[in-house]
Amino acid sequence: MKIMVINPNTSESMTRHMEEVLKKIKRSDTELYVCGLEKGPFTLESSYDKALAVPHILPLVRRANKEAYDAVVIAAFCDPGLSAAREISGIPVFGLEESTLHVAAQLGARFTILSMTDSHVAHKYAEVRDYGLSSFLASVRPLGLTVAETDANPIRTKKLGMEVARRAVEEDHAEVIVLGCAGMAGYSREMEEQLGITVLDPSTITLKFCEAMVDAGVRHSKRGLYAVPPEKEYL
Amino acid sequence: MKIMVINPNTSESMTRHMEEVLKKIKRSDTELYVCGLEKGPFTLESSYDKALAVPHILPLVRRANKEAYDAVVIAAFCDPGLSAAREISGIPVFGLEESTLHVAAQLGARFTILSMTDSHVAHKYAEVRDYGLSSFLASVRPLGLTVAETDANPIRTKKLGMEVARRAVEEDHAEVIVLGCAGMAGYSREMEEQLGITVLDPSTITLKFCEAMVDAGVRHSKRGLYAVPPEKEYL
Amino acid sequence: MKIMVINPNTSESMTRHMEEVLKKIKRSDTELYVCGLEKGPFTLESSYDKALAVPHILPLVRRANKEAYDAVVIAAFCDPGLSAAREISGIPVFGLEESTLHVAAQLGARFTILSMTDSHVAHKYAEVRDYGLSSFLASVRPLGLTVAETDANPIRTKKLGMEVARRAVEEDHAEVIVLGCAGMAGYSREMEEQLGITVLDPSTITLKFCEAMVDAGVRHSKRGLYAVPPEKEYL
Amino acid sequence: MKIMVINPNTSESMTRHMEEVLKKIKRSDTELYVCGLEKGPFTLESSYDKALAVPHILPLVRRANKEAYDAVVIAAFCDPGLSAAREISGIPVFGLEESTLHVAAQLGARFTILSMTDSHVAHKYAEVRDYGLSSFLASVRPLGLTVAETDANPIRTKKLGMEVARRAVEEDHAEVIVLGCAGMAGYSREMEEQLGITVLDPSTITLKFCEAMVDAGVRHSKRGLYAVPPEKEYL
Amino acid sequence: MKIMVINPNTSESMTRHMEEVLKKIKRSDTELYVCGLEKGPFTLESSYDKALAVPHILPLVRRANKEAYDAVVIAAFCDPGLSAAREISGIPVFGLEESTLHVAAQLGARFTILSMTDSHVAHKYAEVRDYGLSSFLASVRPLGLTVAETDANPIRTKKLGMEVARRAVEEDHAEVIVLGCAGMAGYSREMEEQLGITVLDPSTITLKFCEAMVDAGVRHSKRGLYAVPPEKEYL
Amino acid sequence: MKIMVINPNTSESMTRHMEEVLKKIKRSDTELYVCGLEKGPFTLESSYDKALAVPHILPLVRRANKEAYDAVVIAAFCDPGLSAAREISGIPVFGLEESTLHVAAQLGARFTILSMTDSHVAHKYAEVRDYGLSSFLASVRPLGLTVAETDANPIRTKKLGMEVARRAVEEDHAEVIVLGCAGMAGYSREMEEQLGITVLDPSTITLKFCEAMVDAGVRHSKRGLYAVPPEKEYL
Repeated sequence: MKIMVINPNTSESMTRHMEEVLKKIKRSDTELYVCGLEKGPFTLESSYDKALAVPHILPLVRRANKEAYDAVVIAAFCDPGLSAAREISGIPVFGLEESTLHVAAQLGARFTILSMTDSHVAHKYAEVRDYGLSSFLASVRPLGLTVAETDANPIRTKKLGMEVARRAVEEDHAEVIVLGCAGMAGYSREMEEQLGITVLDPSTITLKFCEAMVDAGVRHSKRGLYAVPPEKEYL
Repeated sequence: MKIMVINPNTSESMTRHMEEVLKKIKRSDTELYVCGLEKGPFTLESSYDKALAVPHILPLVRRANKEAYDAVVIAAFCDPGLSAAREISGIPVFGLEESTLHVAAQLGARFTILSMTDSHVAHKYAEVRDYGLSSFLASVRPLGLTVAETDANPIRTKKLGMEVARRAVEEDHAEVIVLGCAGMAGYSREMEEQLGITVLDPSTITLKFCEAMVDAGVRHSKRGLYAVPPEKEYL
Repeated sequence: MKIMVINPNTSESMTRHMEEVLKKIKRSDTELYVCGLEKGPFTLESSYDKALAVPHILPLVRRANKEAYDAVVIAAFCDPGLSAAREISGIPVFGLEESTLHVAAQLGARFTILSMTDSHVAHKYAEVRDYGLSSFLASVRPLGLTVAETDANPIRTKKLGMEVARRAVEEDHAEVIVLGCAGMAGYSREMEEQLGITVLDPSTITLKFCEAMVDAGVRHSKRGLYAVPPEKEYL
Repeated sequence: MKIMVINPNTSESMTRHMEEVLKKIKRSDTELYVCGLEKGPFTLESSYDKALAVPHILPLVRRANKEAYDAVVIAAFCDPGLSAAREISGIPVFGLEESTLHVAAQLGARFTILSMTDSHVAHKYAEVRDYGLSSFLASVRPLGLTVAETDANPIRTKKLGMEVARRAVEEDHAEVIVLGCAGMAGYSREMEEQLGITVLDPSTITLKFCEAMVDAGVRHSKRGLYAVPPEKEYL
Repeated sequence: MKIMVINPNTSESMTRHMEEVLKKIKRSDTELYVCGLEKGPFTLESSYDKALAVPHILPLVRRANKEAYDAVVIAAFCDPGLSAAREISGIPVFGLEESTLHVAAQLGARFTILSMTDSHVAHKYAEVRDYGLSSFLASVRPLGLTVAETDANPIRTKKLGMEVARRAVEEDHAEVIVLGCAGMAGYSREMEEQLGITVLDPSTITLKFCEAMVDAGVRHSKRGLYAVPPEKEYL
Repeated sequence: MKIMVINPNTSESMTRHMEEVLKKIKRSDTELYVCGLEKGPFTLESSYDKALAVPHILPLVRRANKEAYDAVVIAAFCDPGLSAAREISGIPVFGLEESTLHVAAQLGARFTILSMTDSHVAHKYAEVRDYGLSSFLASVRPLGLTVAETDANPIRTKKLGMEVARRAVEEDHAEVIVLGCAGMAGYSREMEEQLGITVLDPSTITLKFCEAMVDAGVRHSKRGLYAVPPEKEYL
């Protein structure tokens, strides 16, 4: 199967890093194409950033449909343009946040999302509510680090992530941790061992979920919410 | 006070029509600037259309801030780009759907939204849920007309709207009708009289609400959900 | 337009204070009549107090209808008799709590209500739930002061209010503060500046909202929840 | 034990009828005092009626406390003044609607409330929501009869009630029927047999529930929602 | 009336203790039969324990129906097999948790459940949600004691229970305490006096509630959720 | 990977049929063991049936853990014993209903579950609510056929299923159909084509989901809801 993974920002290093990670875990029969945006924001940290990224994501989704891909993954933990992408796509489109949260909901009573900075917290609460999954949410806890700080000091990031996750377990009754921040990618297994609870890395979970859904022949409904947009003039 | 009203599509006739209607009802001390988009979709009928319109709405919001406007109204009943606009704006930004639904919730037990075609129904249910107002929603009922058909035959449109509203009252226990479709603008008073219940025209309601909030000195919170986006590179 | 504002208790000084404050902020074309109750409780601090106040509020609502007022505001942050008033009124009736909370919901992800004493906390949670707005509620936080203590020491009151609001922001992720206690009236602007978030004074918000709704010609639905009560014998 | 049952209206015939019915089903060790109001509305059919009844209910609650009653039942299916009564009462106070709905919730997946006229429907939906029990509500279905019509033609009333209940079972998946209309009292057993599902008569259920709670020594909490109102001046 | 109380575990001492307690508080006209399981787990502390207990509970429910009992109480604060029991029973079946929570919901704004160990907390949250009563839940607070520890040191248990309850009142705004742990039985009255709020002992509440429902002639609905299971082969 | 699929009833033909179907769709690197129960009900149509099946499911889950399986699927659309199984299992355990509903929630606004007979409807509503997914549920619609009738007449079953699904689309705004009845297995693709919307076969979806989760190294949390049950005596 052919899967297009879209890193919905203009950071080439992030795109290359994602490609490396996902190529290691993909099924042997999966042909993976990981791409980033040529135009748009360098990272996604606000509704504003998402709004500017989406118009550059959608042509890639169209291309995936034309070039006979089997599915698309939009690979940021805020699912930019997911609904619009599904409208213009006949092949399934999955988002890291939506898919991972639906998995997390099956693995324990309640999950905590680790996010980067304080400014993400309100967004994550809103997104979980919009996904109809608030009853599974223990808390959103920020690391208080920017992406840059995370990259500069991975050891400190891992240590901090562990501390924040531990507080989520003890104070918020979290049973599952979702690594909703790019800087934590790759630490899930180590954290699981030390914390003794389930820790999910969204990009791994979503790629595996996507492969399975392609394998099962699943497509999103083209009636209602994701119906093909009516034709019209676009200036 | 100075209010910018953005018609978030490229239909100039719709922009001019909106200007005419709103100029009649604005406060005498309100200076109104009604503008449309130079680029983007001709009408908004899908998440895809919204996604393509938003990047052209945001520069207007920036301009309103720079040119000392007191507030912005995004004038389509699907509030495209509302969150992103609030992030980049120090002056208040209101959306027709959000503001009108919060008014409707105060005027009766439950409201019904009249929408244009069947394809809007799922979107409206999702939007009302995302706004946290589902407990006030009696139903969403489509007229089954496109914008073009509405324009071509206003008498039929009004008659059909009345019939659909009546069914909402009788079958769904609607106590308030929200005209969530541009083609019905201007019929609210007549419908109220014939139906004997409250009928809301979103553009009127929102302009009046916006004027009042400016008058009260209200601004949205810049902490959390609508915080200023972090500076970064945009390609 | 003519608006009757009912201070629903027997404290004349509170009525006069309210009149002063509202006269300063009303529109120039608004004719304001602020009145209190001749009989009933001196302040409203319980369901019991509300129950005893309501029968004395309703005749004023009838009078407003007879004397060609355009709207009524019931001016206590617990909306005593709001439903009953709407039933017997053809002109719109607004309550400070309901209207302010619907505004607050549009200005940030979640709001915190500051209340006077600990005994109000449970009531506020219940009222927000009954208004269907719990998903917007960050917390209810009491100042721990009685009305008398508030009046006796305004400087201490303001300082305490600021501290409590700050804890709401830091510990409860509040993005908007609603001053649900009479003693804080007039401090909203100063608090906004110091806290850096939106602070709402319910009487200001509601008067402005009411003026706008009159201007828009809005009335509550007379079908269903607010239908005219059937005629009958009252002993 | 001594229980005061308050018929919260001025219809003496209704008070006498209630007394007859309840005396037949009370425990032998229960001393029952059934009383009506001397002043207030003849029946309760709106928020307005409730508001006018409550001030005349509360002195009876005080009296029950002074005269060493063990509990109070407010005997109308809209629980007028229940919260205020609990505030001023050290002995438990139960309302027909609240207590019956909590019983109904234990006897099947969802219940339907039969109400008198169409004007009650919106009120019942709001009350069930305010009681936090909407997830148990299948529907509210009106008989379309006034109290007077019900009294005048009991055979037609019973027949109509049966028809409406049957539609609730078939169309709304109701598993329990709650007779939320005085005119249906006494028909529950016969309806159960014919419909094959559980039918609850609120006055019976609530008296029995009240006796049991007195027997168990249960009292409502005097901290928080039902705390004793602060002393103050009442004009 | 004849009531069968099933202690759904194999601890004979717990069965005898329950019998003693309940015989003291039962109505004089109640004939009580308290029995335990011959096979199954010694105590119920997990879904696994519940699953193994249920098949041994159900024959007792069948026997209660055959031997003309009027009702059955399943006497553990996790209601094992309640739905299955209702399906095979024509007489009412009540569970300690469901019935007590519906009583608690009428006695204050929100209740806290005291549970034994930390491992019960997630179960209690899930059970309250499944009962549709989450809006009444202040918190679940564990004592951190096993059943054995509780039995070995009742004075320490009582002291600890009081401390945990006090924290629930102060930190979680609990207005009612539900003793969801066998080891606390018998302390409710003393705790009420010291805490100044309502404290419920589930076995007392449920027996009294059950007696009242038998007295009222109430049965669960046999249509829908609790319909008689279709006949079939069981190997 | 090694996956154990448990058909949780004693129908050998159903076990064999399930094995045939799943072997066709499994990954080539998946070693599948499909087994049924030796004791228990022939089919699962009630809470009673489930209660009797669970004790015979759990030893198979223990065996899967001992024999180095990678995961377990409990293969009935009511997930019997899912929580208990997770408690005693270190390897992941998935249930057809839970996993399929979380997939359905990602493919359209709302799903309809097709069930066998009318008696399942209330159970399905309760299960969806217990899974916290009610906001995604359009409706539950029964075919009105028993398993036996389904087997005897597959053509009529398919025709009936199509009709019921079409009504769900038209009357309930369903965008996704979940085949929650064994008799419909194998018709999903054909139904999708004719209905033009997504139709999910739970056993296919869940096996694929399970393979992906094993591949991703996902395990359920062993802290909280699914913690290992404390050791104790089982008679």
